[in-house]
Amino acid sequence: MTRFMDVHHDMKGITAEQLREAHQADLAIEKDEGVHFEKAWADPESGTVYCLSEAPSAEAVLRIHERTGNKADEIHPVPLTV
Amino acid sequence: MTRFMDVHHDMKGITAEQLREAHQADLAIEKDEGVHFEKAWADPESGTVYCLSEAPSAEAVLRIHERTGNKADEIHPVPLTV
Repeated sequence: MTRFMDVHHDMKGITAEQLREAHQADLAIEKDEGVHFEKAWADPESGTVYCLSEAPSAEAVLRIHERTGNKADEIHPVPLTV
Repeated sequence: MTRFMDVHHDMKGITAEQLREAHQADLAIEKDEGVHFEKAWADPESGTVYCLSEAPSAEAVLRIHERTGNKADEIHPVPLTV
């Protein structure tokens, strides 16, 4: 399992409720791909959302986000943490 | 206080030790600006580093990073978390 940070750039105006719903939708199906979404941070003004996950691959993360309608624009493995 | 995510794009090859040292350098002077760096995640392959902080302003975060020689390329307030 690797930790990943993915980034969405087109979520302008996202509300706390919408962020919570999107996260819940991901959590509901994440097991299909062996992914776990740990946390997400959003900037409604610029429309940027960062999602932290643990997963077997970047593709697994991207597939879950696509199925819930929240396609990520970027993803990076982040093996180092402090 | 607001939560911020800042991003560095030019840290290719960063090691766990270098990430730890950079984070420690920020922690050592963060109080000068009322900032607290909570966590950082790094991808040595693409050279991307994400730093999560709490601070009175984006400028305060950027000043600390600049003083420790780790200028950030982007910063966003992330008032929403899940």
